[in-house]
Formats: sequence, C-alpha cells, structure tokens
Amino acid sequence: MRIALIGFGSVGRGIAEAIVHKNLDLTVSGVADSKSGIIDPAGIDMRAVLERKRETGMCGEEGISAMEIITSADYDLLIEVTPTDARTGEPALGYITAALRRGKHVVTSNKGPIACAYHALRTLADEHGVQLRYEATVCGAIPIMQALENGLAGNDIRGIYGVFNGTCNYILTRMADERLTYQQALLEARELGYAEADPTYDVKGIDAAIKLVILANTVWGLSTTLDDVDTTGIDAVTSDALELAEGQDCTIRLIGEIVPGKEILRVSPRIIPKSHTLVVSGTLNAVMVDTDMAGKVTFIGKGAGSSETASAIISDVLFIRDHHVKRT
Amino acid sequence: MRIALIGFGSVGRGIAEAIVHKNLDLTVSGVADSKSGIIDPAGIDMRAVLERKRETGMCGEEGISAMEIITSADYDLLIEVTPTDARTGEPALGYITAALRRGKHVVTSNKGPIACAYHALRTLADEHGVQLRYEATVCGAIPIMQALENGLAGNDIRGIYGVFNGTCNYILTRMADERLTYQQALLEARELGYAEADPTYDVKGIDAAIKLVILANTVWGLSTTLDDVDTTGIDAVTSDALELAEGQDCTIRLIGEIVPGKEILRVSPRIIPKSHTLVVSGTLNAVMVDTDMAGKVTFIGKGAGSSETASAIISDVLFIRDHHVKRT
Repeated sequence: MRIALIGFGSVGRGIAEAIVHKNLDLTVSGVADSKSGIIDPAGIDMRAVLERKRETGMCGEEGISAMEIITSADYDLLIEVTPTDARTGEPALGYITAALRRGKHVVTSNKGPIACAYHALRTLADEHGVQLRYEATVCGAIPIMQALENGLAGNDIRGIYGVFNGTCNYILTRMADERLTYQQALLEARELGYAEADPTYDVKGIDAAIKLVILANTVWGLSTTLDDVDTTGIDAVTSDALELAEGQDCTIRLIGEIVPGKEILRVSPRIIPKSHTLVVSGTLNAVMVDTDMAGKVTFIGKGAGSSETASAIISDVLFIRDHHVKRT
Repeated sequence: MRIALIGFGSVGRGIAEAIVHKNLDLTVSGVADSKSGIIDPAGIDMRAVLERKRETGMCGEEGISAMEIITSADYDLLIEVTPTDARTGEPALGYITAALRRGKHVVTSNKGPIACAYHALRTLADEHGVQLRYEATVCGAIPIMQALENGLAGNDIRGIYGVFNGTCNYILTRMADERLTYQQALLEARELGYAEADPTYDVKGIDAAIKLVILANTVWGLSTTLDDVDTTGIDAVTSDALELAEGQDCTIRLIGEIVPGKEILRVSPRIIPKSHTLVVSGTLNAVMVDTDMAGKVTFIGKGAGSSETASAIISDVLFIRDHHVKRT
C-alpha cells in the first residue's frame, strides 16, 4: 500500500519513524511539510527524509506543495497530519476532500474537518468506496473509535462520558493534590508544555466539546456542531470548590457527556467521588461507554502526545491495509 | 451470513435474543443444546426456538446432535458456546475443529480450546482461509482482543497486567471494604452467584492463569500452557494482610502479569496503591496494556455474565460478517 504523508511536524515524524523502524509493509510515495515536498512512485527513503528534515527543516524540495502531491501523486492512502485550525478545519479539510474525490483512503489526526464536515466527508468516502478514519482525533492513544465501531459492535450505545482534555485534567489534578490556585496550576502546565500560550481552547472546554461533536455525529449519526454543546470550562474552578469536594471524598473533573436519549450534550466541571473510574490523574484521558449488552466499559490512556497520535494513525492505516484495500 | 449456534444455555439464549431483537442481518440455520437440535437452511425462527426452550427445556428435536449440525448443516459461521471443561477444552475443541475442517468461521466463548490448542486451531483456520475469534474468552465485555489486534496495531506490546477474575476481585473488595474474612466473603460471593459451589477454579487463580495463556499465545505467539504460569490464588489472603495494606493506602488484588521480555507469566495476590488504575471494585475486570507508542492503555468492564459474553460473541460475528466473509 502506498502512502502520501502530509504534515511533517512531530506527529508526521513519529509516523515516519514507525515506518522506518517497524516492518509495516508500507511504501511512502509522497511527503510534504508546509514548505516543501517530495514525490517518488517507487518509494521514498524515509530515513533520508527524516535526516533532511532534521538538518534543513524541510522534508523535500521547495516548490512541491501538499496539494500537488494530494491531487497528482500515485498513492492509495493519505495520512493527513498538518497543523490545522480545529474550528474551521482548514487546511486539512481541503486536503482530505481532494484525496477522497480521487478515491483515496484517508487517515487524519485533525479534529476540525471531522467536527465541521463529517457527513459531507463520509458521503464522499462512501461514494468513492474508500475509508475515512480518524482514531487520533478523540483521546489520542485510546482506541475508542475502534472499540465503538468493532469491539462493542452490536451494542446499543446509550451514552458516552469522559475526561477528554488532558490539559484541564492536569490543572485540576494539581489544584487538588498540591492545593494550587487555578493560575498557579495553569502556569505549571504551560511550563511543562501541557498548555499553550493561549490556553483558551483547552481550559474553556472547547477541545473537549469538539471531541463530543465528533463522537455524537459518528456514533449516533447526529448533525451536531460546537454550538450545540453546552460548554463550561475550568477557568472558574476555585481552590475552595476543590477543598469542599475533597471534604466529601470527591474531586472535580471536566466531564464531557453525550446521552442522546436525554438530549444531553455537555462539557462541564463536575464533582465526582474520588473512587470513580473517570477520576484519572495528570494528563490522562478516560472514556466510559454505556451499552445495553456489555454494560459500562471504560478506557484510560494518554490523550495527547506525538507518539500516541502516531500510534492511532498507524492503527488506522494498518486497519485499512488489512481490511479495506481495494482488491485489484 | 448463516449461523450455526451450538450451546443454548444463558449465553446462547442471550445471543438468540440479540439476533431476534436487533437488526443484525444474520440467519440461523442450525441450533443445538445438549439434548436436541434443529436444522433449517432457509433460516430458523429464533423467537419460536426461545419459546420452545423456555417451555420444554429443549431448543429442537431429540436425535439431532450438535456434531451432526456442525458436520452436515449449511452455515458460514459456527458460534460455539457449549458448557466446556476449561482444562481439557472438550467438547468445544471437537466442535471447533470439525467446523474449521469444513472451512467455516468459528466464534467461541470457551477458554479451554484456545488455551489448550491455540496453535493447532490457528493453523487449521489459516489453512482453510477462515476466521477463529474468541473475544469472549478474556474479560467478557471488554473488547481487549479487538484492541490488541486492531486498536493498538503497529505497537510493540511490552506487557499485559490485569485483574482477570471477577470472583476473586469481589472477594478481595468485600474483605477490604467490610473487613470480612476470606470465608465470609466467599460465602457471600456464593450466595450472590459470583462463586461456584466448588470455587477452586477461581480462587486458586486457575481461571486468571488460563486467560494469561490465551493472551501470551495469541499476542506474542508463545506456546505456553497452564503449567508455565506461576500461579498463587487468593485463598491464603488474610484480613490482617488486607488491614496492613490499608494502613499504607494500599489494597490487595489478584493480578495477572505477562512480560515476555522479563520472562514473567504470573498470577498472584499483589499489594497495590488504592489509586492504581487496576484497583477496580466488585466483579469488574481491568487490563492494562503496556505499549511502545501508545504508552499504557487500560480497559475496565464486566468480566463475566451472559449478556456481556453475548456482547463479545456478537461483536466477533459482526466483525467476520463485515470484514472476512468470503466473497462468492
């Protein structure tokens, strides 16, 4: 199977490393970063590309663009891991659309296109008989999409509850464990690289809400948007509130909930018993799926990180390789 | 896809109920319990079979045996959920072998055949180009085999750790929470139907060890047997030991561990911090998979129960239907 790899930041490089070091039986025929690209239908030496990127900051030659590779190179599957605006979905949305229109399978780590345009992209993929997979968009290393699609197949999914944002979870964990104020914990998260310079996207609950939109639209076929999610962030959580919770053997976590039967689609700080399965520490994510036959099944793992995202991308690619590559 | 359903106890009936009530696009062409059977290539009315079983204790007619259905009926996939000796694997092993020899896909809930004869069965399935799936054998409702096979595909699995036996976990939970003695907690587990009249298989760690054998042979291709597992049960755990653990904010759980790189294959009661992800309550199971790219991913859910087992069986059946049914 021939791969076009678009995006060569830390996730893209993690994927390239896996292709180099693991025997995955994948040939890369196109690679692009924001400034350069390389095309070779016979297969690109990814070891050399990684070295060139390290030395020059570019993976290929100037003048070969991502879109050129997507629309003209010879490949079976597009791996799309560009830096993308999660709210507009661009430039990933344009890339994914172009690849699907050419009848290419797509695997992406970008939440934006899936949250903004899921049904249009799904229709396009179905029309062309190709796969669109996005395990990496929800809870990084946790194979939640695979579990919902296959592991729990046949179950009615009644609801999904979880800790979907590692940055908020880190801040709340530190506020509770070390009695830090919100500002102190946020500062620490920034210093450790867990929070961005502008933390709005995480701490206001937007990132968690986008993941809920993806799950709601994918699992139940709903047509929700970010505006439909009743979203409250963690920036108003005080040390006093955490101390009060602590006194009842509880703590506070930013919980995302989808319960279509009760029209619940919400992200908010919740007081929950410390012994609850969703109370995980630090930057971990946790998702509980409530089903009719399997009962409640919970998944816990790292929600972010380049290696974790690469893991999710690779699992999607291998799933398509093993189960969906067109028989020629 | 046509199904032969062999075994019509609570799990078999749970599967039949799911086929009746959910739109799974499955036709049942053969059903057998220990005393009777029914064959109809055009499709059996499963609602009627469930009613007959309820009224007469038999699913079909006397004189039609399970083996007759397996070797002569028209079906694509055998669902094998008979009461089977976990140590010898019979009668399931004979049934599964006969179906694979006929080139039929097999889904089973029986640990015995997979633990005793995995490599022979896998070879037989490969030779005939059919699938052998057994999600239900390890941790009931938790889609752990699916996660290891697909969700975490591409990862090197370094180790697997977990609480694999709900009976032991219930007993240890009750001893810790209510300061019961082992005998008191065992009695309670028996009254609630969580422990058998002869609890040896659970409390001596044998059930957990069998699950480790299945994982070791499946995930790493090892050829381990029950004798290779260093197994200690929970029957020697005292209230004093639990109280000591409690004093250090710890508790005791029966933990199964496989770490091939360190030659660890062990089931034993372990003292672990109460905040550890594997400390789950009551009859829950928990499995932590340690990987190179995805880090540590933990799965928590019900380990037993007829509905949970039916869920795992159905997910395997649907996976084969969607991804492996022979194109004709």
